[in-house]
Amino acid sequence: MSDTPSPAAVSMDAIVALAKRRGFIFQSSEIYGGFNGFFDYGPLGAELKKNIRDCWWDDMVRRRDDVVGLESSIIMHPKVWEASGHVAGFTDPLVDCKVSKQRYRADQLFFAAVRVEGIQVTQTTTETVVSTSDGEDRAKHSHTDFDLPPPIGYVSALESERTKEELQEKAELMKRKKAIQGKMLPLEMKDFTLATEAEYALIPSPATGEPGSLTAPRSFNMMFQTNVGAMTDASSVAYLRPETAQGMFVDFKNVVDTGRVKLPFGIAQIGKSFRNEITPRNFIFRSREFEQMEMEYFIHEDADWAKCHEEWITWCEAWLKSIGLPSSHLTRYSHPKEKLAFYSRGTVDIMFAYPFGVQELWGIAARGNYDLTQHANASGKPQEIFDEATKKKFVPHVIEPAVGVDRILLAVLCAGYAEEDVKDEKGNVEKRTVLRFSPRIAPVKVAVLPLIKNKPELVALAQKLYAKLKRRYAVFYDETGNIGKRYRRQDEIGTPWCVTIDFDTIEKPGETFTLRERDSMSQRRITEAELFQLLEEQVF
Amino acid sequence: MSDTPSPAAVSMDAIVALAKRRGFIFQSSEIYGGFNGFFDYGPLGAELKKNIRDCWWDDMVRRRDDVVGLESSIIMHPKVWEASGHVAGFTDPLVDCKVSKQRYRADQLFFAAVRVEGIQVTQTTTETVVSTSDGEDRAKHSHTDFDLPPPIGYVSALESERTKEELQEKAELMKRKKAIQGKMLPLEMKDFTLATEAEYALIPSPATGEPGSLTAPRSFNMMFQTNVGAMTDASSVAYLRPETAQGMFVDFKNVVDTGRVKLPFGIAQIGKSFRNEITPRNFIFRSREFEQMEMEYFIHEDADWAKCHEEWITWCEAWLKSIGLPSSHLTRYSHPKEKLAFYSRGTVDIMFAYPFGVQELWGIAARGNYDLTQHANASGKPQEIFDEATKKKFVPHVIEPAVGVDRILLAVLCAGYAEEDVKDEKGNVEKRTVLRFSPRIAPVKVAVLPLIKNKPELVALAQKLYAKLKRRYAVFYDETGNIGKRYRRQDEIGTPWCVTIDFDTIEKPGETFTLRERDSMSQRRITEAELFQLLEEQVF
Repeated sequence: MSDTPSPAAVSMDAIVALAKRRGFIFQSSEIYGGFNGFFDYGPLGAELKKNIRDCWWDDMVRRRDDVVGLESSIIMHPKVWEASGHVAGFTDPLVDCKVSKQRYRADQLFFAAVRVEGIQVTQTTTETVVSTSDGEDRAKHSHTDFDLPPPIGYVSALESERTKEELQEKAELMKRKKAIQGKMLPLEMKDFTLATEAEYALIPSPATGEPGSLTAPRSFNMMFQTNVGAMTDASSVAYLRPETAQGMFVDFKNVVDTGRVKLPFGIAQIGKSFRNEITPRNFIFRSREFEQMEMEYFIHEDADWAKCHEEWITWCEAWLKSIGLPSSHLTRYSHPKEKLAFYSRGTVDIMFAYPFGVQELWGIAARGNYDLTQHANASGKPQEIFDEATKKKFVPHVIEPAVGVDRILLAVLCAGYAEEDVKDEKGNVEKRTVLRFSPRIAPVKVAVLPLIKNKPELVALAQKLYAKLKRRYAVFYDETGNIGKRYRRQDEIGTPWCVTIDFDTIEKPGETFTLRERDSMSQRRITEAELFQLLEEQVF
Repeated sequence: MSDTPSPAAVSMDAIVALAKRRGFIFQSSEIYGGFNGFFDYGPLGAELKKNIRDCWWDDMVRRRDDVVGLESSIIMHPKVWEASGHVAGFTDPLVDCKVSKQRYRADQLFFAAVRVEGIQVTQTTTETVVSTSDGEDRAKHSHTDFDLPPPIGYVSALESERTKEELQEKAELMKRKKAIQGKMLPLEMKDFTLATEAEYALIPSPATGEPGSLTAPRSFNMMFQTNVGAMTDASSVAYLRPETAQGMFVDFKNVVDTGRVKLPFGIAQIGKSFRNEITPRNFIFRSREFEQMEMEYFIHEDADWAKCHEEWITWCEAWLKSIGLPSSHLTRYSHPKEKLAFYSRGTVDIMFAYPFGVQELWGIAARGNYDLTQHANASGKPQEIFDEATKKKFVPHVIEPAVGVDRILLAVLCAGYAEEDVKDEKGNVEKRTVLRFSPRIAPVKVAVLPLIKNKPELVALAQKLYAKLKRRYAVFYDETGNIGKRYRRQDEIGTPWCVTIDFDTIEKPGETFTLRERDSMSQRRITEAELFQLLEEQVF
């Protein structure tokens, strides 16, 4: 993985196209025109996703002595989400356009006041009166609002890769249309949550281009809501969980009472979560239905949380590398203290360089004992542990590493994807597309290929090996097309090894096969026992 | 598994208690008083459930050449459920009690007319006039309604294990209260869907005991409904899937176009489904959130569907046995032709003898080409395959084996559970509780036990073996308590083998351990290599 291309070299279009072409990822309900924010995983995607889950479960739960598993329900008692703060606070700010009936996330709707040097607006007329002044140098100084000329108008644009350019273009168009001379001051781009009350009426709606129709931002809860039972009223409202984490807190006492666990210990869970994102985007990165792998690591209230926090960050980074993500794509981001929730002691995100930008992959939060305390208060059931040493009860604190399966899957697709010029048997340069998946997560571990299909001895040996491998590994049998083409097909779906049963297999002693490696494309002879040994070492 | 107890010998109370006590299954949101129809799987339950899923995926997808996997989204385009017929037809009949505001499933609300021999009701008075006749023999003959005396009233009761007795008691009470002499005719129990319009007003509400407040049954859709996107109106309504199967149909063409599949082939999926059951019951057997393992096996329109159907039924039975369900608990039920949907060619259920009755475990349905045809019509996208032989296009037919993970999990708990009298080391009889899980699905495969914990050599060897096993298997290390007690703890959670590191291990040559088998409780010496060999053979 050391020679993976730099993030910029991979385009999302190429990833999306390959994902569709080879059956990794489809739009949900595609025959009905798709369903925004929902995705399906095809045959290879389902295997890849399962492998990511299984690796995490093996490393996080089965191979550790201090973490146990859990599978809590997606729909929980609505009081869970009141206690956790999600009913009141899990919101996005939304803005309505009263004319078009469109809705926007306020933090994704950007605007700027358009100002021109030396312009003054007379208060008695709606016409803009132009008067130049020697403001040439002013733009070079930092100036307060007080110093600024009044705006000649506002421009707005939705968040995109070129929001800034779009605002600039619109501002220039406005200046031209209004026939205003003078130098435009640099635009100060803000999102709608930062608009003043007076500005709401002045900012144009992205739908109509005209100001006057946008409402003030209001809170929109991102939890999907449903009704449980025969009644459809307020009494039956329930939510699809927006995170799996609350399951670990709500079941904390049950696990302590039945699980033979001792502090420090963790409860881990993999499962679907749902968020009613107003603008799902970046393929499977931000969707409305997604899968999380979360773990709550409970520690003593007097434990060194910062040390434990750091240990988990390190563990998560190492784990990402163990499934093939290169260090070059991974960075850390510490949330600034002033942006943390009052109970939070610190949050570090492991960031990944996606083609669309460096984005959060894995958040590791030190949450104090906020969640257990909230549930203790709301349920009236103490969530405490008895300390044998001090003979005191206390509410444990928690470190929470939370990651999305879909985001990891997208990361391994992006980091593993490459288009290369390679030489074929005749020395001609041809293009190969390759997915450099780690053997741990590759959907197919080995492809078994008889060199030619009309030689019964080769086919019989290939089938025999295939059957043997298949009992323990996801393997693929392919006898169609020339061997180079078959290698390419496997490269494109990330199969680490191809085994070719050729004439040497039947003619030379020792029954060896050609093992062809995906990344180096090198070939060597290998026995069946060596192949199984290789898989045993690299796959788990 | 041959000597498992007969179904009647296991009580659900014992199963539920063990499931809670050892952390297999908790009520969802228990600290908030629970949430009817939702369950959480604790540390051992999560492992057991994962093992059931993994075994199925291995056998159904990875080890077969003709089945590929899929993971489609839980929330799909609402048109999917219109086309599939679920919006119009996936309903339960509901009855309201206008006084108590309670709702009941009409097919779970039972009633009976109470009739007494020779009784005639004069039409002019509401008083019941008693007159005996020589009807002594009449009850012995079968008689039509025409022959029957008019009822003295109606009784009702909700479905339970003693619905019939309850109706009988209520009828006798009624007769006594009304001071009516004569012999009561045998009650004819019916559910509310069979009530005549005239009877609606005569049948007492189970809530109030009085007639006159029950409405006619009406259809209640069992799909959970939510809204997707910023609007909360009819345009944004979507559903939580009530089955995973539609995902396979909707993605059929995508899989065909990308998956290198040829008829006959299957698409398999494991995932959560949701049904708003009015009366969830029998623990995890009928819950509102559950997990399904479904497969759609597509065949040629001219293929011998009956043969293929039978092959899949046989496959499913064999698979259930491979994870430890005994033949003695399994039976087949063929749905009568007249009860099948018009498109269905046949459905066979594999039934399991649960403590609460023989119930459906695995349904294997021959569904013709109904589903693909529905989606082709609704989407305008043909769902056809081109037949190279006949040069004609056709819509494939399908065989659908559909099973619930939770139902299998409950079945293995019920079939595996036993309480036995065994002798301890001193020959005293004690009780042991044992879960006879198959090694394939047991949450813990091996427990590693140093004979005593204050002998460093034993502990070191035990830890070494534990670390080695843990890389590949779910294992448990336990050094607390006497060895007999530790064996019992493992018996109770279904661990097939315990390995004890004892003085023979360090004193005798060859480094052998004591292997203790759960079911026979027999012990023998085993080397590390033999242990790994045993696991390799039995676990996968």
